[in-house]
Amino acid sequence: MSRLNPDYARRDEMPAERLRIAVVGAGYWGPNLARNFAQSPDWDLAAVCDLDGERARVVADRVGAASTSSLDEVLDDPTIHAVAIATPARTHAKIATAALGNGKHVVVEKPLADSRGAGVEMYEAAERNGLVLMADHTYCYTPAVLKIRDLIASGETGEILYIDSVRINLGLIQPDVDVLWDLAPHDLSILDFILTDGLDMTEVSAVGSDPLDTGKACVGYLTLPLGSGGIAHVHVNWLSPTKIRRMVIAGTLRTIVWDDLNPQQRISVYDRGIDLESQSRTEANVTPATVSYRLGGMWAPALAEQEALANMATEFAAAIRGSRAARTSGGSGLRVLSVLEAAAQSLAKGGMPVAVEHGVPKVEEMV
Amino acid sequence: MSRLNPDYARRDEMPAERLRIAVVGAGYWGPNLARNFAQSPDWDLAAVCDLDGERARVVADRVGAASTSSLDEVLDDPTIHAVAIATPARTHAKIATAALGNGKHVVVEKPLADSRGAGVEMYEAAERNGLVLMADHTYCYTPAVLKIRDLIASGETGEILYIDSVRINLGLIQPDVDVLWDLAPHDLSILDFILTDGLDMTEVSAVGSDPLDTGKACVGYLTLPLGSGGIAHVHVNWLSPTKIRRMVIAGTLRTIVWDDLNPQQRISVYDRGIDLESQSRTEANVTPATVSYRLGGMWAPALAEQEALANMATEFAAAIRGSRAARTSGGSGLRVLSVLEAAAQSLAKGGMPVAVEHGVPKVEEMV
Amino acid sequence: MSRLNPDYARRDEMPAERLRIAVVGAGYWGPNLARNFAQSPDWDLAAVCDLDGERARVVADRVGAASTSSLDEVLDDPTIHAVAIATPARTHAKIATAALGNGKHVVVEKPLADSRGAGVEMYEAAERNGLVLMADHTYCYTPAVLKIRDLIASGETGEILYIDSVRINLGLIQPDVDVLWDLAPHDLSILDFILTDGLDMTEVSAVGSDPLDTGKACVGYLTLPLGSGGIAHVHVNWLSPTKIRRMVIAGTLRTIVWDDLNPQQRISVYDRGIDLESQSRTEANVTPATVSYRLGGMWAPALAEQEALANMATEFAAAIRGSRAARTSGGSGLRVLSVLEAAAQSLAKGGMPVAVEHGVPKVEEMV
Amino acid sequence: MSRLNPDYARRDEMPAERLRIAVVGAGYWGPNLARNFAQSPDWDLAAVCDLDGERARVVADRVGAASTSSLDEVLDDPTIHAVAIATPARTHAKIATAALGNGKHVVVEKPLADSRGAGVEMYEAAERNGLVLMADHTYCYTPAVLKIRDLIASGETGEILYIDSVRINLGLIQPDVDVLWDLAPHDLSILDFILTDGLDMTEVSAVGSDPLDTGKACVGYLTLPLGSGGIAHVHVNWLSPTKIRRMVIAGTLRTIVWDDLNPQQRISVYDRGIDLESQSRTEANVTPATVSYRLGGMWAPALAEQEALANMATEFAAAIRGSRAARTSGGSGLRVLSVLEAAAQSLAKGGMPVAVEHGVPKVEEMV
Repeated sequence: MSRLNPDYARRDEMPAERLRIAVVGAGYWGPNLARNFAQSPDWDLAAVCDLDGERARVVADRVGAASTSSLDEVLDDPTIHAVAIATPARTHAKIATAALGNGKHVVVEKPLADSRGAGVEMYEAAERNGLVLMADHTYCYTPAVLKIRDLIASGETGEILYIDSVRINLGLIQPDVDVLWDLAPHDLSILDFILTDGLDMTEVSAVGSDPLDTGKACVGYLTLPLGSGGIAHVHVNWLSPTKIRRMVIAGTLRTIVWDDLNPQQRISVYDRGIDLESQSRTEANVTPATVSYRLGGMWAPALAEQEALANMATEFAAAIRGSRAARTSGGSGLRVLSVLEAAAQSLAKGGMPVAVEHGVPKVEEMV
Repeated sequence: MSRLNPDYARRDEMPAERLRIAVVGAGYWGPNLARNFAQSPDWDLAAVCDLDGERARVVADRVGAASTSSLDEVLDDPTIHAVAIATPARTHAKIATAALGNGKHVVVEKPLADSRGAGVEMYEAAERNGLVLMADHTYCYTPAVLKIRDLIASGETGEILYIDSVRINLGLIQPDVDVLWDLAPHDLSILDFILTDGLDMTEVSAVGSDPLDTGKACVGYLTLPLGSGGIAHVHVNWLSPTKIRRMVIAGTLRTIVWDDLNPQQRISVYDRGIDLESQSRTEANVTPATVSYRLGGMWAPALAEQEALANMATEFAAAIRGSRAARTSGGSGLRVLSVLEAAAQSLAKGGMPVAVEHGVPKVEEMV
Repeated sequence: MSRLNPDYARRDEMPAERLRIAVVGAGYWGPNLARNFAQSPDWDLAAVCDLDGERARVVADRVGAASTSSLDEVLDDPTIHAVAIATPARTHAKIATAALGNGKHVVVEKPLADSRGAGVEMYEAAERNGLVLMADHTYCYTPAVLKIRDLIASGETGEILYIDSVRINLGLIQPDVDVLWDLAPHDLSILDFILTDGLDMTEVSAVGSDPLDTGKACVGYLTLPLGSGGIAHVHVNWLSPTKIRRMVIAGTLRTIVWDDLNPQQRISVYDRGIDLESQSRTEANVTPATVSYRLGGMWAPALAEQEALANMATEFAAAIRGSRAARTSGGSGLRVLSVLEAAAQSLAKGGMPVAVEHGVPKVEEMV
Repeated sequence: MSRLNPDYARRDEMPAERLRIAVVGAGYWGPNLARNFAQSPDWDLAAVCDLDGERARVVADRVGAASTSSLDEVLDDPTIHAVAIATPARTHAKIATAALGNGKHVVVEKPLADSRGAGVEMYEAAERNGLVLMADHTYCYTPAVLKIRDLIASGETGEILYIDSVRINLGLIQPDVDVLWDLAPHDLSILDFILTDGLDMTEVSAVGSDPLDTGKACVGYLTLPLGSGGIAHVHVNWLSPTKIRRMVIAGTLRTIVWDDLNPQQRISVYDRGIDLESQSRTEANVTPATVSYRLGGMWAPALAEQEALANMATEFAAAIRGSRAARTSGGSGLRVLSVLEAAAQSLAKGGMPVAVEHGVPKVEEMV
């Protein structure tokens, strides 16, 4: 990100100065963004903007900010450094490219856009203008996911064998997107964040079902081969009477189980598994004699209680001030879109593997 | 089963008389069969047979039966009516067809055989000789699965929307079969038992992974389209440090969750779900307005404590005496093999859907 | 409550008019009261009052109300009908009696006061002035406790056999009160609410421990004989690394288990238990032959998601308008204090049963 | 145990020789003892003895032992070294003293006897004859309890703050004993085993209830002050529709939670708690400022899968051969009886603390 706007690079020398941001979109997620930017020591919340001016006003009043129904007013304001977009996904590209064109840094609610093409457009606009484009992959800023990332990066888990994620509940059937586009961005953005190589798989497959004839899949299963020979699998479902948020990350050394609905023990790290004698791994047939079972204990690390969005706001400011890509960069959001598009094609073909489109930017340097 | 051996049909008139059975195979499962047949009021355990005569003797002694290392001795004994086979899967067909050829009824440990072809051979031998061929699909005789079958048959669940089964633990890596052939027969035999139309899907797909390079898949995901437009999905896994045995059967009216590791509450029936106004189901796009959410309670029926194998032994005797197919008939065992073979092909092709071979016998009449 | 102030009785004829309330105390609980009264259709939040005027201002600003550091200002304002008190317990009596003396209805955070004597004073002031005195026993307005009360009142549970409540976690060691005074008011107010006869026991006993030498019990066990011959028992604990909020209400017909930390299944109703043939209950020795075991299922009713404090605010307004005692009346708060005082004496005597002081007002008529 | 019979001391020099034992009592527990002694490398099962000779025969046949209905026959047999008693508690003393008088070592099912007096008689008979008297406190030989004992002994937990044990389920109402005598021996024997000083409390209190008028308490709560200033509390209950087996051992450094119904995680060790600055512990009032909260993680050690009774049989043989007291010695069984008797008196007095009778033998040296 060497072409970062020099104006902002200079601003970095004055760390005490707050950055000014406007939140665009005052629907479901916008109020959460507004509250967190308003409370952040790094930010001043300049305005809340929504086509529905009254809705913008209500949200703005709660946090003591100005409101407007005019996006142009926000984009033309030279005192505003950044924009947080929480509008419907199909509008992300238009608003983001306009903001980037007007010299604003941009953070966008997930998914980054409603198609890979739109995401590429946003990515290139950010690169062209030397500005930060960040995906608000909120889960990546939770203490649980940060801990998982650390455990993998530090080698605690060893090589990844498989990842199995279940994200199911009685969900709102969306008017425009299927369950994969609605829920799987969470899993994919987390995978991009925790895996050493990010979402770099060359193909994916997906199956699903629309048993209520709603016109789009309400049950979906996504399969992603991992570089190591392992496999990642995601189950998303709007029709489950029970709610489950559970991801297993199994490694050669340890296995992590993340149960996000158990606040007293979100992360469990198991020292149990199967060991193969190294020489046997190249032979075609393993005999039971070459396998040994490791029956160790389990460890549940303490996790701090932090609001993820507050961490996200901090990271957005740090990326801008550091002239660097954010941890959940635009490139990350783009990789998620690339996988989702391939998955949608596979779903339409009954589960046939589909290549993930090349040209996805590589994982950027992270802090 | 009209061609049933007249000798056995006559025996039916004397219900008080016990049937005589020999258990062949004294390894892992044989002792359980021996104990249950020995304790059954319907059966006399005539002998335990194993190539390893000493092993046969130990098992036989514990239940007060004779032992032998000669299969011929068992098959030539005219006082023995039936044989229970618990040898390695690759030997099932040879032993079963020999027994059927000698006028013995046969029950076989799962899977029925190690290939669909072998299963067809067994099925035809039983038909030819007018004898009962039964698959020991033990789970189908547990109070939990019997309750699920009743709930579906009585219309409590409504139309099936999806079935999601998870059967994972730290498993013994088998020398000859992959995780699908090892564990999925449980799920498939249960589906054949509880679904009104049995395992009648025309195609299946499977993906999997062998991340330890053992030479066969240790993680597997199986997808089966259901006739109703729904989907069944099975996750089997030998590499999980936690053990899960959980099947969800979601219907339009109610959803059943079966957690076999929770002896205090194995079955939960949820009256929660999504209702669509009937006219909306033919339109391409459902709007949220046509959906309503049913937020009812949950009910956990009391289940009797019964040993499944005792029920199986009773059913085997009843099928013989009633000159009828057993509840888990040879045809059922064959349908399981047909799906497994197609799944194995799909797995080899990276998840491409593969047609299930036709000519599978239809679901027989059950009691 | 026949002596209710005629001014308020007249007001009742105009139901559309909102009542005006001030919240006194802007510490831990006050902001929750302020928010709920501000959002209630029955109430206008007139002011937030705290000796620390800046703290009052911050809380008031968040809900768009006025603030003051002068209690007199609130009490002298003739447009204010009611006061909600959320100050330290030792100040409740003084503030409440002043407010009642100035014609204000009063609702008080639990416990009603820091001694039975102070509570009696408050109770009598309310009676004297014909005003509503209400205890903010918040749990009694949760859907779970309302459901339990209904199940008992409708006869579903039968006669109560025992109640066992566990309320433990790693708690803040309070500077002025022990764990019984801190946590047991929750259990006692719930018992007073759900039991047909309320907290009418004639004696109680309590044991406890202060293993860290903090100067007051950090672990406490409270035993209350029930009129039916049953027993209620409460475990409160500040030193538990795990958090449990679990109450069992066992009846002759059904048993309710309330697990407040399981939002997906807070209430379970078990149809399991022991039945005695009726004639055997008068004999000294029951033989196993006269006992039968009922092994029924379990039912978990759906519960609405409602904020308890909003229900409390509604009830406070309804009691004022209806010239009637509130569901969690001052008398209820007083009964809780009576039991707590007797428990404190028992604790000091090593668990010897201590009589609950008589003269506790009887359970009032409830809606 | 210096007066141990010299015959057995000499036997110690021949470790390869098996000891011979007879099991007396073929009811509920006897068959388990028979099976474990029959399979033990340390023991030969000489006979199973029961007044009901047919019942003895059935149990003996299953393990290939002789049977008899004559206790004298067993006691007169000079080749039998030891007797395991699993008859009703009221018969323990008579059988044990007779056996000890005939030179047999004795192990007795819990409780050691039906009164402290009977237990003393047995204890003295063993001392007099220089023989081993052991209590079959089976739980003390489970991997979970052994691990808890190790964690306490090694200082991992620090000083014990409180112990809270819950042992409840829908139980068989016993014809002769109340719930305290039926279930609490488990908790008390475990406490005697894991606490450094054993069951040395000078007084206990108990409350309970018989809400079904069965003639004896079906719900019981037992309180035992610990020497350290802490407290142990036990809840036993025959009327609970849910089954719980959960013991919390909270220490100044760590807290152990033992959930015996969770085979996948029986023991959890929490590094969470409250720390006091040492100087503050002598002051009357701790201010919050002197308290700090330790919010560490949790660790669940792997436990071997072992049958507790097999370990018990091994220990019985080792105690005999080593001329030493068994880990769960007669003295331990006697301490349990002393506490039970005091608890029974307290229960009759409505919970008044009752002194535990002195003269209880001190904890013996253990391996």
